Amino acid sequence: MSVQARQRLFKALDSLVLIDPHSHINPHAAASTTLADILGYHYYTELAHSSGMPREEIEEPGLEPREKVRRLAGYLDRIDNTVQLSWLFEMCRVLFDHEIDHFSTDNWEEVFTAAEKALTRTGWEDEVLERSRVEQIFLTNDFDDPLEGFDTRRYVPCLRTDDLVFKFHDKAIRQRLARATGVEVSSAATFREAVGELFEHFTAKGARACAISLPPDFAPQPNPSESEVEKTVADLLAGGDTSPKAFSNFAFWTLAEFCDQFELPFDLMIGVNRQVYPTGVFQGQDLYDSRTSLIQYAPLFNAFPRVTFPVSVLAETSNQELVSYAWIFPNVVTNGHWWYSNIPSHIKNDLRARVQAVPRTKQVGYYSDAYKLEFIQPKFAMYKRVLADVLFEEFILAQHWSEERAVALGQDILRGNVERIFRM
Amino acid sequence: MSVQARQRLFKALDSLVLIDPHSHINPHAAASTTLADILGYHYYTELAHSSGMPREEIEEPGLEPREKVRRLAGYLDRIDNTVQLSWLFEMCRVLFDHEIDHFSTDNWEEVFTAAEKALTRTGWEDEVLERSRVEQIFLTNDFDDPLEGFDTRRYVPCLRTDDLVFKFHDKAIRQRLARATGVEVSSAATFREAVGELFEHFTAKGARACAISLPPDFAPQPNPSESEVEKTVADLLAGGDTSPKAFSNFAFWTLAEFCDQFELPFDLMIGVNRQVYPTGVFQGQDLYDSRTSLIQYAPLFNAFPRVTFPVSVLAETSNQELVSYAWIFPNVVTNGHWWYSNIPSHIKNDLRARVQAVPRTKQVGYYSDAYKLEFIQPKFAMYKRVLADVLFEEFILAQHWSEERAVALGQDILRGNVERIFRM
Amino acid sequence: MSVQARQRLFKALDSLVLIDPHSHINPHAAASTTLADILGYHYYTELAHSSGMPREEIEEPGLEPREKVRRLAGYLDRIDNTVQLSWLFEMCRVLFDHEIDHFSTDNWEEVFTAAEKALTRTGWEDEVLERSRVEQIFLTNDFDDPLEGFDTRRYVPCLRTDDLVFKFHDKAIRQRLARATGVEVSSAATFREAVGELFEHFTAKGARACAISLPPDFAPQPNPSESEVEKTVADLLAGGDTSPKAFSNFAFWTLAEFCDQFELPFDLMIGVNRQVYPTGVFQGQDLYDSRTSLIQYAPLFNAFPRVTFPVSVLAETSNQELVSYAWIFPNVVTNGHWWYSNIPSHIKNDLRARVQAVPRTKQVGYYSDAYKLEFIQPKFAMYKRVLADVLFEEFILAQHWSEERAVALGQDILRGNVERIFRM
Repeated sequence: MSVQARQRLFKALDSLVLIDPHSHINPHAAASTTLADILGYHYYTELAHSSGMPREEIEEPGLEPREKVRRLAGYLDRIDNTVQLSWLFEMCRVLFDHEIDHFSTDNWEEVFTAAEKALTRTGWEDEVLERSRVEQIFLTNDFDDPLEGFDTRRYVPCLRTDDLVFKFHDKAIRQRLARATGVEVSSAATFREAVGELFEHFTAKGARACAISLPPDFAPQPNPSESEVEKTVADLLAGGDTSPKAFSNFAFWTLAEFCDQFELPFDLMIGVNRQVYPTGVFQGQDLYDSRTSLIQYAPLFNAFPRVTFPVSVLAETSNQELVSYAWIFPNVVTNGHWWYSNIPSHIKNDLRARVQAVPRTKQVGYYSDAYKLEFIQPKFAMYKRVLADVLFEEFILAQHWSEERAVALGQDILRGNVERIFRM
Repeated sequence: MSVQARQRLFKALDSLVLIDPHSHINPHAAASTTLADILGYHYYTELAHSSGMPREEIEEPGLEPREKVRRLAGYLDRIDNTVQLSWLFEMCRVLFDHEIDHFSTDNWEEVFTAAEKALTRTGWEDEVLERSRVEQIFLTNDFDDPLEGFDTRRYVPCLRTDDLVFKFHDKAIRQRLARATGVEVSSAATFREAVGELFEHFTAKGARACAISLPPDFAPQPNPSESEVEKTVADLLAGGDTSPKAFSNFAFWTLAEFCDQFELPFDLMIGVNRQVYPTGVFQGQDLYDSRTSLIQYAPLFNAFPRVTFPVSVLAETSNQELVSYAWIFPNVVTNGHWWYSNIPSHIKNDLRARVQAVPRTKQVGYYSDAYKLEFIQPKFAMYKRVLADVLFEEFILAQHWSEERAVALGQDILRGNVERIFRM
Repeated sequence: MSVQARQRLFKALDSLVLIDPHSHINPHAAASTTLADILGYHYYTELAHSSGMPREEIEEPGLEPREKVRRLAGYLDRIDNTVQLSWLFEMCRVLFDHEIDHFSTDNWEEVFTAAEKALTRTGWEDEVLERSRVEQIFLTNDFDDPLEGFDTRRYVPCLRTDDLVFKFHDKAIRQRLARATGVEVSSAATFREAVGELFEHFTAKGARACAISLPPDFAPQPNPSESEVEKTVADLLAGGDTSPKAFSNFAFWTLAEFCDQFELPFDLMIGVNRQVYPTGVFQGQDLYDSRTSLIQYAPLFNAFPRVTFPVSVLAETSNQELVSYAWIFPNVVTNGHWWYSNIPSHIKNDLRARVQAVPRTKQVGYYSDAYKLEFIQPKFAMYKRVLADVLFEEFILAQHWSEERAVALGQDILRGNVERIFRM
């Protein structure tokens, strides 16, 4: 009975057409072309590497797709326990109509062929979205993205700002900004002017969020006096190998001011240390120090009461704080389950606390973080299974809610809040 | 079968008459007079505010009870998923004989009326305690409370000491201490004299504990030389906007000395940062930094082996340390599930670890922390449901205990340890 | 059905013959001689002490075994809820053929007698291993252990190095090293020479690992210039009450270099603070500060890609980092469930995350940490029950794996990985 009720809940949730509020999809090449695109996702390459596969075998220049898949197949049976590999099984079943329960040297070719058949089908991009029941997908756009040549209603622009805050010491970044905005940054005022141009451009193209990922020790403060700010910008422009903390603070705080002015939610993805394992595979080098606290953001949340901050935390140990801060601050919203926290055991604990103590209107349940469209379905399916379990246990069992009522809560978490919070 | 066994366990636990070892009840106005008193609890006002209700609508001076409830009803459907709102449903059912499954604009008036009927009944204060099966309730008394005009057997005094430790720079606090004790503090010696008077007064009135809440970075140390202590007190008396850390340390350590002398348990409530959101609603402004450790209290636990320290932690991430410190230090006792940790998902994880590794004699299961009597029943009921589940899973299922034996363990945790530890 | 499937899984896992990859067994007196040896395990003495038993009653010099057991029996009913006492019940049933469900003043004598009957039986050491289904056990050897007089195939040597890193300021330690190696340390070079001798000796005797326990604030860095290293060694030799941090860093880094050269895994046991409760019972004085991060070890993991680091963490709040670092770094392996994390509630959460995100080849499931052979069976049984539950829930239920496939995963975690990682 309990198993059936959980399945009914999952089915009801799975039938909803969703908006994916955070991804890394390239709208000009949104779908995969071969299984190599899919197995090139960093989750597979980094786990294969962690299991013993040399980076050189994975990242050999000019590697043919079939050969890349063949090589990876030699290692992926070592991760057949992981939820990441289960995404491949799910995807094969639901998207490629090809049922598998393992991926190894003995079946990689048949999977490659099954994937090829689907991926090369006319209209696959539309088909995969329909099979995945997703109609809009947020992007993560570089600040100088022209946002042209794609349907911005389907692929919703989002201004990613890490480079402006943490890499502005890099001349190439500054040149890109100058090219994109026509403004050469030579002062705090011209930085603000350039950022203003970006916000104009992005919002004109339908951007629905500004986003940034932040290291565990980041602790933004209101800007000091204008003369100190000018000194900070001058110091940065004078050169150096990193962006001074004072500059990062200035740039970040400036972004928050523009989010306020342009009424754009500011997605904060808190807690990542970059390049902890510098000789790891591409995108498989970042880790974290879980010693971070949302109290570092209290000055920000207090200073910008009209800006909504959808907050993602990397460390599961931050989830209770996230729940508490979303419970107290009107402008803090829980946002998805990010990266190292995006596995069912962490999602379940985290979600349970969120549904017990955060207003139902302030929870953005999930985003795919996907680089290719094919991952949206299996990642959301993983989440929806956990959501169905939690709704069953916490509301139907514990509080005798009807299934309809539980599904309605799930709908707010999966879709309704995305629409409202990001003003879709 | 499992469902029935859990219910039998809950029923057995629920039939026990309990002592509530920590509350904020005002013994001169212990029960609510209207539903507005109940919905005025900070959990409702802060969650309504977090969901979008302006503070001004909630805290408008002179607001009539009905109007306050009417206004809140417009927002509380946004938190119908929270355990906090489930307390209202439970209370309506068990205390007001009025079954509801939501609270909104369409039923607030009938709930107001049902509550009124109960709250205005003759003998309601006795009745609510009887319906809640609670016979004694610890208070949280200001240090200058005369402790008169109420039954100190039913409402057990407890000396709350935050003001002495963290607000003694405030002249008004010092004046209140002088009025209460007849001692004007002008030195370390007179501070000790005044505190001694408080302990005399409180213990004479039947106080059973001294209590304090502490910020995450507090790390008490033995007092330095008397001359340094005198300098610390002199510095404080010389003025300033905060209590210097050295003074807080001195005052706290002095309290521990008096707990030792007067054989009073010292409740430590560890981990709160005050006024993190200063424009939040009344009592809805405090949050925390979960980066704290019980190792900060090792000098204290070592220095006062005869003082029992019932310890509450605000961050769930501190629970494993609490379990371990209670497992090693004879004078450390686990105490309830505090505030942001007081939701079923955290309680369940925390309780499971406690019953697996802390001696059964060293666990104070729960306190209500309530401001009004009506909350004792639903909060304890929430806890008892989790306790029943954990006893069932960890002892009856996993270790084949009889139900009687599991209930006996529950009784220790719910009542027996309170009696023994606080010498009732 | 679910209960039966879990039992079948447990049975299948329990039938495997295992290697215990970390213990404190003394190979010259591996088995207990009376129940006093068993109840002398620090888990019982520290929990009895925590429950009110004075240390003096436990540690009275010359105490007879029967009297020690009689005294402890007066307190152990206070911990009958703990998993630690359940180990005694399990051991009585499986090893002593004597079923009990409590241990108290009314049955200690019969238990003493039942234990005596078994422990004094001819061939008990072989018998207990057979009943426990364990064939090889790693030791924790002092650096100057001659490793003679026992079967190093059954009792596998492991070089424990805490003394070299954290106590080398102690002249007695240095003298022991000189005696063991014939090298008097007077410089960095001679320290390296002496350590090289130890590695030669240990590997010649079949050692399979080097191991160390580390405080929460340890953060190893590559060694500075040789002249600075020499100054560090000179400073240490000049005297002082503790090993300077710079020396500990030098010694630790040197050990890692030798692990690299001798192809020995380096077990890191991260997070313990020693003597937090200095007046506690023997081995019942250590606790921890959970604020630690594996990012402190990133320089180490990067510098020694050929050294495998089986990592144990003391705080459960470190488990997600451990999972993530093992998922990214090829040379980081999850290792067991250590000390304060070694209770079912923590194991279950921790294990669930590990099986969901760490390659199946990189998980060393469990070690007993036992001081006496009799504890291997009940501690492993506790772990195997959790493992069976997790395999059932995460693979059979959630992913429809066959029982055979789930057991095969369990076998890797329990035995296969131990063989491969420690090159048995």
